[in-house]
Amino acid sequence: MQIKNILEKLNSIDLDGMIVLKSENIAYLTGFKPSSFSVLILKDDPILFISKMDYEDVPENLNISVEDFTSFNNLNKAIIKNKPDFLGVENSLPLGIYKKIKNNFKIKLTDIIEESRRIKSEKELKYIKEAIKIAEKSFKNTKLEGSDNLVAAELNYNLMVEGSLKPAFETIVASGTASSKPHAFLQQKTLENPVLLDWGAVYKNYCSDISRTRVETEKQHEIISIVIEAQKEAIKVIKPGIKASYVDKIAREVIEDYGYAENFIHSTGHGLGMEVHEGPSLSKNEELKLEKGMVLTVEPGIYIPGEFGIRVEDDILVKKRAKILTKLDQII
Amino acid sequence: MQIKNILEKLNSIDLDGMIVLKSENIAYLTGFKPSSFSVLILKDDPILFISKMDYEDVPENLNISVEDFTSFNNLNKAIIKNKPDFLGVENSLPLGIYKKIKNNFKIKLTDIIEESRRIKSEKELKYIKEAIKIAEKSFKNTKLEGSDNLVAAELNYNLMVEGSLKPAFETIVASGTASSKPHAFLQQKTLENPVLLDWGAVYKNYCSDISRTRVETEKQHEIISIVIEAQKEAIKVIKPGIKASYVDKIAREVIEDYGYAENFIHSTGHGLGMEVHEGPSLSKNEELKLEKGMVLTVEPGIYIPGEFGIRVEDDILVKKRAKILTKLDQII
Repeated sequence: MQIKNILEKLNSIDLDGMIVLKSENIAYLTGFKPSSFSVLILKDDPILFISKMDYEDVPENLNISVEDFTSFNNLNKAIIKNKPDFLGVENSLPLGIYKKIKNNFKIKLTDIIEESRRIKSEKELKYIKEAIKIAEKSFKNTKLEGSDNLVAAELNYNLMVEGSLKPAFETIVASGTASSKPHAFLQQKTLENPVLLDWGAVYKNYCSDISRTRVETEKQHEIISIVIEAQKEAIKVIKPGIKASYVDKIAREVIEDYGYAENFIHSTGHGLGMEVHEGPSLSKNEELKLEKGMVLTVEPGIYIPGEFGIRVEDDILVKKRAKILTKLDQII
Repeated sequence: MQIKNILEKLNSIDLDGMIVLKSENIAYLTGFKPSSFSVLILKDDPILFISKMDYEDVPENLNISVEDFTSFNNLNKAIIKNKPDFLGVENSLPLGIYKKIKNNFKIKLTDIIEESRRIKSEKELKYIKEAIKIAEKSFKNTKLEGSDNLVAAELNYNLMVEGSLKPAFETIVASGTASSKPHAFLQQKTLENPVLLDWGAVYKNYCSDISRTRVETEKQHEIISIVIEAQKEAIKVIKPGIKASYVDKIAREVIEDYGYAENFIHSTGHGLGMEVHEGPSLSKNEELKLEKGMVLTVEPGIYIPGEFGIRVEDDILVKKRAKILTKLDQII
């Protein structure tokens, strides 16, 4: 069904099919996420090539042919069997692999599957909501004391206890001056304020992504109230039809008004799904318009080099307006 | 120094420079591993383009120019400034990025940095040994009881307590029939025997990678002794000058002799360094010869579908012969 839709879309832009390598794209189309190198040839009779190591995990009700990937030779035979003129490939396709599969057909880069993935189905939404629930419960069970790395270790432990097979990404716990780096590496040092945490769970391949910052001083309280105001204003304008860049603009304007334009050094948010970072990006140059069913993070932050940083991040569903999916208090 | 060597090698194959995106390759050449999208233009006056978010992490003594990556426009200007005819690019370069940087020069795919990375320096070795020590200590502090996912959660927690910023890869704890899948996903189920564990630590960007299996029944004991024999024979033949594929052949022959040829469904091992899986691959078609200074995993396994699987994995340094770096008992 899903595959049929994508094939129709491919045909409508004169593509005979597509070569799919990204495991999230394969999972989206087949329901099965391979753990090793694998290639889905999307055509009228699609074939999924997987490693022997994944064989036992293939669901019995998978409704497409599965073959053993033994060499590019076999793969190429299957690709050219239907004598395609034009095939779609992913933007993420590594050049080295491309050279190995290139044959006598033309290719066109397309994000057609990622585009489809932007709008979440009811089932996908359920999984994302569950991933949020797990992340929130794990956070509540984590004591913010000790050292940056031990807090992260405990939060990760709790994520797994609550049913996340792994953290959705490298958990950030950055306290004191370390918080001024949005992607701070963990440090083995005594926890200070502010404590910036950014973490997420995975549930049935779908991610959550939340940030909170514990503040202490007057200045930190002042900054977090600006960040929360920026986030609130940004969320307010979210609705189908507006440009993703507009949400970024609104958040940025609030922060600029308080004189911290130079200290908001990343985009306002991003799509969320099987990948932690998906389209659309809530950033200056994103031309995409928001649509019903998108799930987005909204996460403005202010980072003062040498002092501290503060970020607040929630997960949002685009309906008629924004629906905030995260339930955790913003002041922790 | 390192950069100069690579530039000389590039020049010797008529390349004017190289475009480097892989963060491990950038870390290898500059000592700095960016956390976000970044591009190193390797030429006589190299430039590293990074995200604003990584600025604060750049070491003060980094001896190359660092610029803000704002758009492909700026990047492309810097690339074509020296009017290159031929530039090297990585096999892993995504096609979508390639299209954005392609300009009026020719490109050649090259693994020249990965090739250099295969031979570890004393410093790199020190880091790998520390990553092994952390992984071993973490394992010793982990109780093998409860459920698959809780054992993995505790092992991951211990890795972080011991100084690994994250697990080197998704820790595997697969017990009972789940162990028959080499890349098993974690399950929330009571721990049974055998218990197959595969885990590693990261220390200063370098990884360790170890597997152990706790066995119980007579058949499981029988199988693990075959796996250990295969590993021992494979390690015995390791020395500079032999083909990597030969190590695989030897391990495979032992397992074949016992009638389990069909049950050894992955390669015998792989290089280990900043990436958990690097060259050379200890597999059938690997033409590379072993060299002094390579660090390898040797990890034969036997997987009986529907019953169980057993794998034993140690980390090896190629000197005059193999030096086993892991110290953990093979029977746990």
